[in-house]
Amino acid sequence: MEYKQPEAAGEQPTPRHLRSAGQQMRSQLLDSAVPLFRARGLAAVSVSEIAKAAGAFPNQITYYFGSKDAMFVEAACREMLHVAQQAERRAGRARSLKGYKDALIQEVMGGDTLAFFIEALALGQRQPSLAPQIARTVDRLHREGARAFEQAMTSRRWRTIDSAATVAQRFWALVIGVALRSAAMGASTTDSINEVRALLNLGVVARSAPSNPLQLIKKA
Amino acid sequence: MEYKQPEAAGEQPTPRHLRSAGQQMRSQLLDSAVPLFRARGLAAVSVSEIAKAAGAFPNQITYYFGSKDAMFVEAACREMLHVAQQAERRAGRARSLKGYKDALIQEVMGGDTLAFFIEALALGQRQPSLAPQIARTVDRLHREGARAFEQAMTSRRWRTIDSAATVAQRFWALVIGVALRSAAMGASTTDSINEVRALLNLGVVARSAPSNPLQLIKKA
Repeated sequence: MEYKQPEAAGEQPTPRHLRSAGQQMRSQLLDSAVPLFRARGLAAVSVSEIAKAAGAFPNQITYYFGSKDAMFVEAACREMLHVAQQAERRAGRARSLKGYKDALIQEVMGGDTLAFFIEALALGQRQPSLAPQIARTVDRLHREGARAFEQAMTSRRWRTIDSAATVAQRFWALVIGVALRSAAMGASTTDSINEVRALLNLGVVARSAPSNPLQLIKKA
Repeated sequence: MEYKQPEAAGEQPTPRHLRSAGQQMRSQLLDSAVPLFRARGLAAVSVSEIAKAAGAFPNQITYYFGSKDAMFVEAACREMLHVAQQAERRAGRARSLKGYKDALIQEVMGGDTLAFFIEALALGQRQPSLAPQIARTVDRLHREGARAFEQAMTSRRWRTIDSAATVAQRFWALVIGVALRSAAMGASTTDSINEVRALLNLGVVARSAPSNPLQLIKKA
Protein backbone atom coordinates (compact mmCIF):
# COMPACT_ATOMS: atom_id res chain seq x y z
CA MET A 1 0.00 0.00 0.00
CA GLU A 2 1.24 3.44 -0.80
CA TYR A 3 1.72 5.40 2.37
CA LYS A 4 2.42 9.04 1.78
CA GLN A 5 4.62 10.54 4.46
CA PRO A 6 3.40 13.90 5.71
CA GLU A 7 5.98 16.67 6.01
CA ALA A 8 6.77 17.81 9.52
CA ALA A 9 5.30 21.23 10.30
CA GLY A 10 7.51 24.15 9.32
CA GLU A 11 10.04 21.91 7.61
CA GLN A 12 11.71 23.13 4.43
CA PRO A 13 10.89 21.05 1.34
CA THR A 14 13.62 18.43 0.90
CA PRO A 15 15.26 17.83 -2.50
CA ARG A 16 13.71 14.80 -4.21
CA HIS A 17 16.73 12.45 -4.00
CA LEU A 18 17.25 13.19 -0.31
CA ARG A 19 13.56 12.86 0.44
CA SER A 20 13.35 9.40 -1.06
CA ALA A 21 16.45 8.25 0.85
CA GLY A 22 14.87 9.62 4.01
CA GLN A 23 11.57 7.93 3.23
CA GLN A 24 13.38 4.65 2.69
CA MET A 25 15.04 4.92 6.10
CA ARG A 26 11.73 5.80 7.75
CA SER A 27 10.10 2.75 6.15
CA GLN A 28 12.99 0.56 7.19
CA LEU A 29 12.77 1.77 10.79
CA LEU A 30 8.99 1.26 10.84
CA ASP A 31 9.32 -2.21 9.32
CA SER A 32 11.76 -3.19 12.06
CA ALA A 33 9.67 -1.66 14.84
CA VAL A 34 6.32 -3.22 13.91
CA PRO A 35 7.03 -6.85 14.90
CA LEU A 36 8.66 -5.71 18.15
CA PHE A 37 5.71 -3.45 19.07
CA ARG A 38 3.20 -6.14 18.09
CA ALA A 39 4.91 -8.78 20.20
CA ARG A 40 5.57 -6.76 23.33
CA GLY A 41 3.66 -3.48 23.22
CA LEU A 42 5.04 0.03 23.50
CA ALA A 43 6.53 0.03 27.01
CA ALA A 44 8.62 -3.14 26.68
CA VAL A 45 10.43 -2.11 23.48
CA SER A 46 13.38 0.30 23.65
CA VAL A 47 14.57 2.77 21.03
CA SER A 48 17.96 1.10 20.90
CA GLU A 49 16.39 -2.32 20.21
CA ILE A 50 14.45 -0.88 17.27
CA ALA A 51 17.55 0.85 15.95
CA LYS A 52 19.56 -2.36 16.27
CA ALA A 53 16.90 -4.39 14.44
CA ALA A 54 16.92 -1.81 11.61
CA GLY A 55 20.71 -1.56 11.42
CA ALA A 56 20.46 2.13 12.37
CA PHE A 57 21.46 4.44 15.21
CA PRO A 58 19.06 5.34 18.07
CA ASN A 59 19.26 9.04 17.23
CA GLN A 60 17.91 8.30 13.76
CA ILE A 61 14.61 7.36 15.41
CA THR A 62 14.50 10.70 17.17
CA TYR A 63 15.47 12.41 13.93
CA TYR A 64 12.78 10.77 11.82
CA PHE A 65 9.93 10.37 14.31
CA GLY A 66 10.59 12.74 17.21
CA SER A 67 9.96 10.10 19.89
CA LYS A 68 9.29 6.41 20.40
CA ASP A 69 5.63 7.22 21.12
CA ALA A 70 5.25 9.11 17.84
CA MET A 71 6.92 6.22 16.02
CA PHE A 72 4.54 3.77 17.69
CA VAL A 73 1.53 5.81 16.56
CA GLU A 74 2.85 6.11 13.02
CA ALA A 75 3.54 2.35 12.84
CA ALA A 76 0.08 1.50 14.18
CA CYS A 77 -1.62 3.91 11.76
CA ARG A 78 0.27 2.51 8.79
CA GLU A 79 -0.62 -1.06 9.74
CA MET A 80 -4.29 -0.26 10.36
CA LEU A 81 -4.64 1.43 6.96
CA HIS A 82 -3.03 -1.58 5.36
CA VAL A 83 -5.38 -4.04 7.08
CA ALA A 84 -8.41 -1.89 6.20
CA GLN A 85 -7.42 -1.94 2.55
CA GLN A 86 -7.02 -5.73 2.63
CA ALA A 87 -10.41 -6.06 4.33
CA GLU A 88 -12.11 -3.94 1.66
CA ARG A 89 -10.50 -6.02 -1.09
CA ARG A 90 -11.48 -9.31 0.57
CA ALA A 91 -15.05 -8.19 1.28
CA GLY A 92 -15.33 -6.83 -2.26
CA ARG A 93 -15.15 -10.39 -3.60
CA ALA A 94 -18.05 -11.67 -1.47
CA ARG A 95 -21.27 -12.57 -3.27
CA SER A 96 -23.79 -12.35 -0.44
CA LEU A 97 -24.40 -9.53 1.99
CA LYS A 98 -23.59 -11.89 4.87
CA GLY A 99 -20.32 -12.85 3.16
CA TYR A 100 -19.47 -9.19 2.65
CA LYS A 101 -20.07 -8.29 6.27
CA ASP A 102 -18.32 -11.36 7.68
CA ALA A 103 -15.21 -10.80 5.53
CA LEU A 104 -14.98 -7.17 6.58
CA ILE A 105 -15.27 -7.94 10.29
CA GLN A 106 -12.97 -10.97 10.15
CA GLU A 107 -10.19 -9.12 8.32
CA VAL A 108 -10.29 -6.03 10.50
CA MET A 109 -10.65 -7.83 13.84
CA GLY A 110 -9.00 -11.21 13.22
CA GLY A 111 -5.34 -10.19 13.53
CA ASP A 112 -3.50 -8.20 16.18
CA THR A 113 -3.41 -4.91 14.25
CA LEU A 114 -6.60 -3.54 15.75
CA ALA A 115 -5.24 -3.92 19.31
CA PHE A 116 -2.04 -2.19 18.13
CA PHE A 117 -4.11 0.69 16.71
CA ILE A 118 -6.23 0.94 19.88
CA GLU A 119 -3.06 1.24 21.97
CA ALA A 120 -2.06 4.11 19.67
CA LEU A 121 -5.47 5.75 20.21
CA ALA A 122 -5.06 5.46 23.99
CA LEU A 123 -1.63 7.07 23.65
CA GLY A 124 -3.04 9.86 21.48
CA GLN A 125 -5.66 10.57 24.13
CA ARG A 126 -2.89 11.45 26.60
CA GLN A 127 -0.52 13.23 24.18
CA PRO A 128 -2.11 15.97 22.07
CA SER A 129 0.99 16.19 19.84
CA LEU A 130 0.08 12.76 18.43
CA ALA A 131 -3.47 13.78 17.52
CA PRO A 132 -2.85 15.10 13.96
CA GLN A 133 -1.35 11.79 12.77
CA ILE A 134 -4.28 9.88 14.26
CA ALA A 135 -6.83 12.33 12.84
CA ARG A 136 -5.39 11.92 9.31
CA THR A 137 -5.51 8.14 9.67
CA VAL A 138 -9.08 8.06 10.97
CA ASP A 139 -10.22 10.39 8.19
CA ARG A 140 -8.63 8.09 5.65
CA LEU A 141 -10.17 4.96 7.20
CA HIS A 142 -13.59 6.62 7.04
CA ARG A 143 -13.17 8.06 3.55
CA GLU A 144 -11.75 4.95 1.95
CA GLY A 145 -14.19 2.73 3.83
CA ALA A 146 -17.11 4.81 2.56
CA ARG A 147 -15.80 4.71 -1.00
CA ALA A 148 -15.33 0.91 -0.93
CA PHE A 149 -18.76 0.37 0.62
CA GLU A 150 -20.41 2.66 -1.92
CA GLN A 151 -18.75 0.76 -4.75
CA ALA A 152 -19.75 -2.64 -3.31
CA MET A 153 -23.36 -1.51 -2.95
CA THR A 154 -23.59 0.02 -6.42
CA SER A 155 -22.08 -2.95 -8.22
CA ARG A 156 -24.49 -5.35 -6.48
CA ARG A 157 -27.51 -3.09 -6.84
CA TRP A 158 -27.97 -3.02 -3.04
CA ARG A 159 -29.45 0.10 -1.55
CA THR A 160 -28.64 1.42 1.93
CA ILE A 161 -30.77 3.33 4.41
CA ASP A 162 -27.86 5.54 5.54
CA SER A 163 -25.11 7.19 3.52
CA ALA A 164 -21.91 5.23 2.90
CA ALA A 165 -20.05 7.79 5.04
CA THR A 166 -22.33 7.09 8.02
CA VAL A 167 -22.02 3.32 7.56
CA ALA A 168 -18.22 3.51 7.45
CA GLN A 169 -18.00 5.75 10.50
CA ARG A 170 -20.40 3.54 12.45
CA PHE A 171 -18.45 0.42 11.46
CA TRP A 172 -15.17 1.79 12.81
CA ALA A 173 -16.70 3.16 16.02
CA LEU A 174 -18.39 -0.15 16.78
CA VAL A 175 -15.29 -2.21 15.98
CA ILE A 176 -13.05 -0.03 18.17
CA GLY A 177 -15.57 0.06 21.02
CA VAL A 178 -16.14 -3.69 21.08
CA ALA A 179 -12.46 -4.55 20.67
CA LEU A 180 -11.29 -2.29 23.51
CA ARG A 181 -14.04 -3.35 25.87
CA SER A 182 -13.73 -7.09 25.09
CA ALA A 183 -9.98 -7.06 25.57
CA ALA A 184 -10.39 -5.24 28.91
CA MET A 185 -12.88 -7.92 30.00
CA GLY A 186 -10.50 -10.71 29.03
CA ALA A 187 -12.73 -11.90 26.15
CA SER A 188 -11.24 -13.65 23.11
CA THR A 189 -10.96 -12.26 19.58
CA THR A 190 -13.61 -14.78 18.50
CA ASP A 191 -15.99 -13.35 21.11
CA SER A 192 -15.38 -9.81 19.82
CA ILE A 193 -15.92 -10.88 16.22
CA ASN A 194 -19.18 -12.60 17.10
CA GLU A 195 -20.33 -9.60 19.06
CA VAL A 196 -19.67 -7.17 16.19
CA ARG A 197 -21.49 -9.57 13.85
CA ALA A 198 -24.52 -9.40 16.12
CA LEU A 199 -24.39 -5.64 16.66
CA LEU A 200 -23.45 -4.29 13.24
CA ASN A 201 -26.34 -3.40 11.01
CA LEU A 202 -25.24 -2.18 7.58
CA GLY A 203 -28.83 -1.19 6.83
CA VAL A 204 -28.99 -2.70 3.36
CA VAL A 205 -32.36 -2.81 1.58
CA ALA A 206 -33.36 -4.42 -1.71
CA ARG A 207 -33.10 -1.93 -4.57
CA SER A 208 -36.43 -2.54 -6.32
CA ALA A 209 -39.54 -1.22 -4.58
CA PRO A 210 -41.13 -4.12 -2.67
CA SER A 211 -44.81 -4.45 -1.82
CA ASN A 212 -44.01 -4.71 1.89
CA PRO A 213 -40.61 -3.08 2.41
CA LEU A 214 -40.09 -4.20 6.00
CA GLN A 215 -39.99 -7.85 5.03
CA LEU A 216 -37.18 -7.17 2.60
CA ILE A 217 -34.84 -5.38 4.95
CA LYS A 218 -31.78 -7.52 5.12
CA LYS A 219 -30.42 -7.33 8.59
CA ALA A 220 -26.67 -7.19 8.32
CA MET B 1 -26.29 4.26 44.17
CA GLU B 2 -25.78 1.06 46.08
CA TYR B 3 -22.49 -0.48 45.11
CA LYS B 4 -22.09 -4.03 46.36
CA GLN B 5 -18.49 -4.91 47.01
CA PRO B 6 -17.51 -8.32 45.64
CA GLU B 7 -15.60 -10.63 47.98
CA ALA B 8 -12.01 -11.37 47.00
CA ALA B 9 -11.56 -14.93 45.68
CA GLY B 10 -10.94 -17.56 48.33
CA GLU B 11 -11.48 -15.09 51.17
CA GLN B 12 -13.27 -16.25 54.32
CA PRO B 13 -16.61 -14.55 54.88
CA THR B 14 -16.06 -11.55 57.17
CA PRO B 15 -18.32 -11.00 60.21
CA ARG B 16 -21.00 -8.42 59.41
CA HIS B 17 -19.79 -5.61 61.71
CA LEU B 18 -16.22 -5.89 60.39
CA ARG B 19 -17.35 -6.05 56.80
CA SER B 20 -19.32 -2.84 57.03
CA ALA B 21 -16.41 -1.01 58.69
CA GLY B 22 -14.18 -2.26 55.90
CA GLN B 23 -16.69 -1.23 53.27
CA GLN B 24 -16.90 2.20 54.80
CA MET B 25 -13.10 2.58 54.61
CA ARG B 26 -13.07 1.35 50.99
CA SER B 27 -15.76 3.88 50.07
CA GLN B 28 -13.89 6.64 51.88
CA LEU B 29 -10.67 5.79 50.03
CA LEU B 30 -12.49 5.67 46.68
CA ASP B 31 -14.26 8.96 47.37
CA SER B 32 -10.90 10.62 48.03
CA ALA B 33 -9.22 9.06 45.01
CA VAL B 34 -11.88 9.92 42.41
CA PRO B 35 -11.33 13.71 42.20
CA LEU B 36 -7.54 13.20 42.11
CA PHE B 37 -7.77 10.58 39.33
CA ARG B 38 -10.25 12.69 37.37
CA ALA B 39 -8.09 15.80 37.54
CA ARG B 40 -4.73 14.25 36.77
CA GLY B 41 -5.15 10.69 35.48
CA LEU B 42 -3.65 7.51 36.88
CA ALA B 43 0.08 8.14 36.44
CA ALA B 44 0.23 11.56 38.12
CA VAL B 45 -1.49 10.52 41.35
CA SER B 46 0.46 8.68 44.05
CA VAL B 47 -0.80 6.19 46.62
CA SER B 48 0.41 8.40 49.47
CA GLU B 49 -1.52 11.39 48.10
CA ILE B 50 -4.73 9.37 48.01
CA ALA B 51 -4.10 8.05 51.52
CA LYS B 52 -3.44 11.56 52.79
CA ALA B 53 -6.63 12.90 51.18
CA ALA B 54 -8.61 10.09 52.84
CA GLY B 55 -6.93 10.47 56.24
CA ALA B 56 -5.60 6.92 55.92
CA PHE B 57 -2.27 5.13 55.61
CA PRO B 58 -0.80 4.15 52.22
CA ASN B 59 -0.75 0.47 53.17
CA GLN B 60 -4.53 0.59 53.62
CA ILE B 61 -4.83 1.12 49.88
CA THR B 62 -2.78 -2.00 49.24
CA TYR B 63 -4.82 -3.84 51.85
CA TYR B 64 -8.20 -2.91 50.39
CA PHE B 65 -7.45 -2.74 46.67
CA GLY B 66 -4.22 -4.66 46.03
CA SER B 67 -2.68 -1.89 43.91
CA LYS B 68 -3.19 1.67 42.72
CA ASP B 69 -4.17 0.32 39.27
CA ALA B 70 -6.84 -1.93 40.76
CA MET B 71 -8.13 0.99 42.81
CA PHE B 72 -8.24 3.17 39.69
CA VAL B 73 -10.29 0.54 37.85
CA GLU B 74 -12.67 0.10 40.77
CA ALA B 75 -13.15 3.87 41.07
CA ALA B 76 -13.78 4.26 37.34
CA CYS B 77 -16.25 1.35 37.31
CA ARG B 78 -18.17 2.73 40.28
CA GLU B 79 -18.38 6.20 38.69
CA MET B 80 -19.44 4.83 35.28
CA LEU B 81 -22.25 2.77 36.84
CA HIS B 82 -23.40 5.83 38.72
CA VAL B 83 -23.45 8.01 35.59
CA ALA B 84 -25.27 5.29 33.64
CA GLN B 85 -27.96 5.14 36.29
CA GLN B 86 -28.37 8.93 36.22
CA ALA B 87 -28.58 8.84 32.41
CA GLU B 88 -31.32 6.21 32.48
CA ARG B 89 -33.27 8.23 35.03
CA ARG B 90 -32.89 11.47 33.04
CA ALA B 91 -33.79 9.81 29.71
CA GLY B 92 -36.72 8.07 31.36
CA ARG B 93 -38.40 11.45 31.84
CA ALA B 94 -38.19 12.42 28.15
CA ARG B 95 -41.43 12.55 26.17
CA SER B 96 -40.15 12.18 22.61
CA LEU B 97 -37.85 9.56 21.16
CA LYS B 98 -35.39 12.31 20.21
CA GLY B 99 -35.47 13.65 23.76
CA TYR B 100 -34.88 10.17 25.12
CA LYS B 101 -31.88 9.53 22.90
CA ASP B 102 -30.37 13.00 23.40
CA ALA B 103 -30.64 12.78 27.19
CA LEU B 104 -29.00 9.36 27.24
CA ILE B 105 -26.06 10.45 25.07
CA GLN B 106 -25.62 13.80 26.83
CA GLU B 107 -25.56 12.29 30.32
CA VAL B 108 -23.17 9.46 29.46
CA MET B 109 -20.78 11.51 27.31
CA GLY B 110 -21.13 15.02 28.70
CA GLY B 111 -18.93 14.71 31.79
CA ASP B 112 -15.45 13.35 32.28
CA THR B 113 -16.48 9.94 33.66
CA LEU B 114 -16.47 8.19 30.29
CA ALA B 115 -12.82 9.18 29.67
CA PHE B 116 -12.01 7.92 33.18
CA PHE B 117 -13.72 4.59 32.39
CA ILE B 118 -11.96 4.30 29.02
CA GLU B 119 -8.60 4.77 30.74
CA ALA B 120 -9.61 1.90 33.03
CA LEU B 121 -10.47 -0.25 29.99
CA ALA B 122 -7.07 0.49 28.44
CA LEU B 123 -5.45 -0.53 31.72
CA GLY B 124 -7.49 -3.74 31.87
CA GLN B 125 -6.34 -4.61 28.37
CA ARG B 126 -2.76 -4.73 29.64
CA GLN B 127 -3.41 -6.31 33.06
CA PRO B 128 -5.50 -9.49 32.99
CA SER B 129 -5.91 -9.40 36.79
CA LEU B 130 -8.15 -6.34 36.36
CA ALA B 131 -10.45 -8.03 33.85
CA PRO B 132 -12.99 -9.58 36.29
CA GLN B 133 -13.87 -6.22 37.84
CA ILE B 134 -14.31 -4.69 34.37
CA ALA B 135 -16.33 -7.67 33.12
CA ARG B 136 -18.74 -7.39 36.07
CA THR B 137 -19.17 -3.67 35.42
CA VAL B 138 -19.75 -4.07 31.69
CA ASP B 139 -22.28 -6.84 32.32
CA ARG B 140 -24.10 -4.59 34.71
CA LEU B 141 -24.06 -1.61 32.31
CA HIS B 142 -25.54 -3.85 29.61
CA ARG B 143 -28.08 -5.54 31.85
CA GLU B 144 -29.32 -2.41 33.56
CA GLY B 145 -29.26 -0.48 30.28
CA ALA B 146 -31.40 -3.15 28.62
CA ARG B 147 -33.84 -3.19 31.52
CA ALA B 148 -34.22 0.62 31.49
CA PHE B 149 -34.61 0.71 27.71
CA GLU B 150 -37.18 -2.08 27.77
CA GLN B 151 -39.15 -0.22 30.42
CA ALA B 152 -38.99 3.08 28.51
CA MET B 153 -40.21 1.39 25.32
CA THR B 154 -43.03 -0.51 27.02
CA SER B 155 -44.39 2.49 28.92
CA ARG B 156 -44.44 4.59 25.73
CA ARG B 157 -45.79 1.80 23.55
CA TRP B 158 -42.75 2.06 21.25
CA ARG B 159 -41.62 -1.11 19.55
CA THR B 160 -38.01 -1.92 18.66
CA ILE B 161 -36.56 -3.90 15.79
CA ASP B 162 -33.81 -5.43 17.97
CA SER B 163 -33.95 -6.79 21.51
CA ALA B 164 -33.31 -4.37 24.37
CA ALA B 165 -30.13 -6.32 25.15
CA THR B 166 -28.77 -5.73 21.64
CA VAL B 167 -29.67 -2.05 21.75
CA ALA B 168 -27.92 -1.58 25.11
CA GLN B 169 -24.80 -3.42 23.99
CA ARG B 170 -24.64 -1.46 20.75
CA PHE B 171 -25.12 1.82 22.60
CA TRP B 172 -22.15 1.20 24.90
CA ALA B 173 -19.88 -0.09 22.12
CA LEU B 174 -20.60 2.95 19.96
CA VAL B 175 -20.18 5.41 22.82
CA ILE B 176 -16.85 3.89 23.88
CA GLY B 177 -15.58 3.64 20.29
CA VAL B 178 -16.45 7.22 19.39
CA ALA B 179 -15.19 8.68 22.70
CA LEU B 180 -11.80 6.95 22.52
CA ARG B 181 -11.26 7.76 18.87
CA SER B 182 -12.43 11.38 19.13
CA ALA B 183 -10.22 12.06 22.13
CA ALA B 184 -7.24 10.55 20.31
CA MET B 185 -7.93 12.86 17.35
CA GLY B 186 -8.12 15.90 19.60
CA ALA B 187 -11.87 16.38 18.99
CA SER B 188 -14.09 18.05 21.59
CA THR B 189 -16.75 16.38 23.74
CA THR B 190 -19.39 18.27 21.74
CA ASP B 191 -18.02 16.72 18.54
CA SER B 192 -18.24 13.23 20.07
CA ILE B 193 -21.77 13.82 21.28
CA ASN B 194 -22.87 15.02 17.85
CA GLU B 195 -21.21 12.08 16.20
CA VAL B 196 -22.94 9.53 18.43
CA ARG B 197 -26.25 11.32 17.80
CA ALA B 198 -25.72 10.85 14.08
CA LEU B 199 -24.52 7.25 14.29
CA LEU B 200 -26.78 5.75 16.95
CA ASN B 201 -29.94 4.15 15.65
CA LEU B 202 -32.14 2.79 18.42
CA GLY B 203 -34.33 1.11 15.81
CA VAL B 204 -37.65 2.20 17.23
CA VAL B 205 -40.82 1.54 15.22
CA ALA B 206 -44.41 2.62 15.83
CA ARG B 207 -46.33 -0.05 17.70
CA SER B 208 -49.55 -0.16 15.67
CA ALA B 209 -49.35 -1.85 12.27
CA PRO B 210 -48.92 0.88 9.64
CA SER B 211 -50.00 0.61 6.02
CA ASN B 212 -46.47 1.36 4.82
CA PRO B 213 -44.13 0.44 7.68
CA LEU B 214 -40.98 1.98 6.19
CA GLN B 215 -42.43 5.46 6.40
CA LEU B 216 -43.02 5.05 10.08
CA ILE B 217 -39.57 3.93 11.09
CA LYS B 218 -38.31 6.60 13.41
CA LYS B 219 -34.64 6.98 12.88
CA ALA B 220 -33.08 7.45 16.26
